[in-house]
Amino acid sequence: MHDQASRENEMTPNAVLSSIVASSLLVAASFAHADAALRERANALFKPIPERVTEMNGEKIVEAQVQLGRKLWFDPRLSRSHLISCNNCHNLSIGGSDNVKVSVGHGWQRGPRNSPTVFNAVFNVAQFWDGRAADLKEQATGPLQAPVEMNNTPARIEATLRSIPEYVEEFTKAFGSANAVTFDNAARALAAFETTLITPNAPFDRFLKGDDNALTAEQKEGLRLFMDTGCASCHNGVNLGGQAYFPFGVVKRPGADILPENDKGRFAVTNTASDEYVFRASPLRNVALTPPYFHSGEVWDLEQAVAIMGDSQLGRELNDSEVRAITAFLHSLTGELPQIDLPILPPSSPSTPKPELDLPGQLESSD
Amino acid sequence: MHDQASRENEMTPNAVLSSIVASSLLVAASFAHADAALRERANALFKPIPERVTEMNGEKIVEAQVQLGRKLWFDPRLSRSHLISCNNCHNLSIGGSDNVKVSVGHGWQRGPRNSPTVFNAVFNVAQFWDGRAADLKEQATGPLQAPVEMNNTPARIEATLRSIPEYVEEFTKAFGSANAVTFDNAARALAAFETTLITPNAPFDRFLKGDDNALTAEQKEGLRLFMDTGCASCHNGVNLGGQAYFPFGVVKRPGADILPENDKGRFAVTNTASDEYVFRASPLRNVALTPPYFHSGEVWDLEQAVAIMGDSQLGRELNDSEVRAITAFLHSLTGELPQIDLPILPPSSPSTPKPELDLPGQLESSD
Repeated sequence: MHDQASRENEMTPNAVLSSIVASSLLVAASFAHADAALRERANALFKPIPERVTEMNGEKIVEAQVQLGRKLWFDPRLSRSHLISCNNCHNLSIGGSDNVKVSVGHGWQRGPRNSPTVFNAVFNVAQFWDGRAADLKEQATGPLQAPVEMNNTPARIEATLRSIPEYVEEFTKAFGSANAVTFDNAARALAAFETTLITPNAPFDRFLKGDDNALTAEQKEGLRLFMDTGCASCHNGVNLGGQAYFPFGVVKRPGADILPENDKGRFAVTNTASDEYVFRASPLRNVALTPPYFHSGEVWDLEQAVAIMGDSQLGRELNDSEVRAITAFLHSLTGELPQIDLPILPPSSPSTPKPELDLPGQLESSD
Repeated sequence: MHDQASRENEMTPNAVLSSIVASSLLVAASFAHADAALRERANALFKPIPERVTEMNGEKIVEAQVQLGRKLWFDPRLSRSHLISCNNCHNLSIGGSDNVKVSVGHGWQRGPRNSPTVFNAVFNVAQFWDGRAADLKEQATGPLQAPVEMNNTPARIEATLRSIPEYVEEFTKAFGSANAVTFDNAARALAAFETTLITPNAPFDRFLKGDDNALTAEQKEGLRLFMDTGCASCHNGVNLGGQAYFPFGVVKRPGADILPENDKGRFAVTNTASDEYVFRASPLRNVALTPPYFHSGEVWDLEQAVAIMGDSQLGRELNDSEVRAITAFLHSLTGELPQIDLPILPPSSPSTPKPELDLPGQLESSD
């Protein structure tokens, strides 16, 4: 019977609903399957930022050193001018960097390279763009002395710290010895503080740990491209970079504006011809917060930086939607920045060395 | 009987003790009386710092403006270079000032005067050494634009803030209107934050409120001298200064090193001959934390500054013990500095104006 037959071919409203639900579940199951596969690949290459770092170079981190390091971090008296603290170029309010092309230091001199972020630096294999410092402690001794940065000397830093009774007390407590106020211990305390400057719980970390909804569809596509096209060959590990050294221009050397000819990178560290224009692969955590990009700081736009990398490192002209997807993925690397209490610093004493503001080439007494 | 008589003239150990206690009590009573008298005189001239400021210019302070102002305070993007924030010259970690002779701003240029502390500035009758700004809001508009300080313009500051979506949202919330992102509102938010930068509960405040033990004997002697010799004629009120204008050199003009001839103080504001070398009496709260001293920043030693004031303002050569006692009293003006959470600042967007580092006299494009 026609009616019967047509009724048999028709679906009741409930059946339609069931069917939609069923196919949605199938689609969802297939998405979930795709997400699981993507997560498995990603977890083989990357690692989430841990909630806390408890050791550095195999030693337990001492809380009193962290607290002392926090004060030193913000203390401009570690610079010759008494105007520049670590936080000037590694500003903890704006991504742990300074968001200018190259850092500006003593006498408004410009440094040779863009300031790398301090956030998650503890996870890098070595410090600086060329890896010339083995660890955070060794790194800390650099800018304190660099003429274009804080322009100070170990002896003057020690004299400053020793002239401030509260610092003497805190160093003694933090390092448990007499004569604890040394340049070396100041760097050690700064490094201890820096181990707390980590940014866990980025969307990417939540995805790695199992949350399918932590990334948008475009970010997942970007992650897939990041692995498929080869970005992850250099940018992997917990920091998506920071683990090894590679030539800038693996396939094609960028123009001299982006890769200045007189900065040969790791060559200056190793004196090995094959290390010309070799740099540490940039760690990409919080990269959306730290323009401008590259050691030259010449590129402000993250999409442009991604396109340049595709061209120079992979020999591949990424199309617009690929660039956008990879950039969207990079935005998922922005983690939770630590909440910092601004320290109240112990006052100077009459014997504290006075600030010296002399500009390079000027002869001028202290003021 | 000899034994009896001698025993009558002798005092038993208990009687000796009673006598000592009695005379101690007498002495204590007399000290307490002296303290009460000193407190009564002091309370007629000075006032404790309140625990909280709830109004500014007769208007209730809005918490959302305070929180926005805290971000703006630490944001170096308010300067042309993106390197200088309010906190550079009014460092909340070191007494609300910068502890250098004169402040250093854009291009490492030196400003004309020593940076006054922001702490308790809300209690001053007007702002700057010469009182040229009526209130905190008007003051805030100065350094943002001064070529030797942050070297920015209202238009560029507004363009910067409007380019940052989170700031647009926060301004709208804080000021409850569309088009809330204005230079004027930025200054208003900064002023709102500054009303929280007060330092209550200094030993002197606790003494004023009734705690005899808050000051040492030397500090009490210093307070007495501070009133007797005439210091309090200019340095009175809640901030022990900051209320009125007086010539530097009431009695005797100091040397040109301390009082530079080309800085005529309030004369530049009023154009009145009698205002030559007239300055606002320095507020003395936390003065021990804010060397160097005077608008010229030429004197690092607080005792020396006290001696100079005695000589130039009172025509009186204070002897060493008087200088020491007054200085000890000034140390009792150091209050409890506020605990500040370092803000995490909203990131720039592609349309945020780029930092410009050009030095005066140089022509250079942005970087």
